[in-house]
Parts: sequence; C-alpha cells; structure tokens
Amino acid sequence: MSHDPNCIFCRIAAGEIPAQKVHEDDELIAFKDIRPAAPVHLLIIPREHIATLADAEPRHQALLGRMALLATKLAREHGADNGFRTVINTGPDGGQEVYHLHMHVMGGPRPWKQG
Amino acid sequence: MSHDPNCIFCRIAAGEIPAQKVHEDDELIAFKDIRPAAPVHLLIIPREHIATLADAEPRHQALLGRMALLATKLAREHGADNGFRTVINTGPDGGQEVYHLHMHVMGGPRPWKQG
Repeated sequence: MSHDPNCIFCRIAAGEIPAQKVHEDDELIAFKDIRPAAPVHLLIIPREHIATLADAEPRHQALLGRMALLATKLAREHGADNGFRTVINTGPDGGQEVYHLHMHVMGGPRPWKQG
Repeated sequence: MSHDPNCIFCRIAAGEIPAQKVHEDDELIAFKDIRPAAPVHLLIIPREHIATLADAEPRHQALLGRMALLATKLAREHGADNGFRTVINTGPDGGQEVYHLHMHVMGGPRPWKQG
C-alpha cells in the first residue's frame, strides 16, 4: 500500500503523529479535525496514500463507497442525528489543504462556520 | 427500483422534468444545478430514490463509490481542471434541500459563493 513519509495523514494513519481517532480499520481511519468548523467535525481518510479524489482509480470504488457509509455511522455516533455534511476538497480550486484524500464530516446544530 | 412520483429528482431521472443533463447511465444521472454556486456546478444523483445519505445501505456501497469517481470525470469534462469540491448535504443540519440523495460537484476559478 502506498505510503508517503512526508504526508501528515499517512503519519497519523501510521500512529507516528497523534490524533483523536474515532475509527480505525484495515482500510480507513477517522479522527477529529483539529480546527473544527462545526460542533461535530471528523475527517475520514484511507490508509493508502491517494493524494486527491482526482487520483482515485476505478479500483478504489469500493473504498470510496465505504467512506460515505462510514460518514453516516460516525455522524450518528457523534450525535449529529439531525444531519451532517460530507465534503471532499480536491485541488487548489477545491480548497484542498492536505494532499491525502480526506472526507470532512460536519454536523451538529447550526450555524457552522462553513456553509 | 424505488421511485417517488412526488420527488423532483426522480422526475428528472424519469425525463418528466427537463434538466441540463451532462451524464446518464443505468444507475446515475448528472445535470447542471439550476442555481449554480460556482462556475461549474453539477449534481450527481442515483436513479434509485434514496432520500438521504443516511438512508444508504451497505448494498449501495458500490453506487456511492461510482458517484465519487464520476465526479472527477465530470469535473474534468467541464473544465474544472484546477480542482473541485464534492458535497453531500444530509438532513436539516446538513442543509439538505431536496430529499433525494445528490452529490454537488463544484469547481472552476475562485471565489465561489460556497466555501
């Protein structure tokens, strides 16, 4: 599996950098965003280093689907029962900041900083 | 396949309501958002009536993955080469407006109205 030693999210996945993890399995990790934009703000990342959604290949289809299903499970577990938003930012115009594919899961009572 | 005759997106999928479609296959349809928040603003929906992401089941995993892969393909085709954002709003706190699962694909030169 691809791993980039200079990538902060690869290092979180490897346990080299601490994070408030809320989920971990063979393929995916989720942790709390350190700059939350909503009462619940989690990030779901694959262990594999995929730089952006635009770099995902057809073989990643199931993985991408799992990320979306996991978002619902985690939103519920963290009390975002009244709704949540999932966002993937891709590339400069997409506002991507860390170049390791990640899905934001934002929820909880409005208003939030984002959207 | 579930179909709700009162759902505007089911009716778009069925061709009963016009839309500027940019993609159509057995499972998914994509069309231009009628109130674009970015230079490129498309919506990807499944033909099946799934009210929200929170209603998606494990059997929808592949479908959800395909939506994410299609987002990249369509963003490229529509000139959002420098990045894009994919968003799924779920439930009231998620800001969902139409209760048929849909993925926003927004791209093009910044700034946009959203995010």
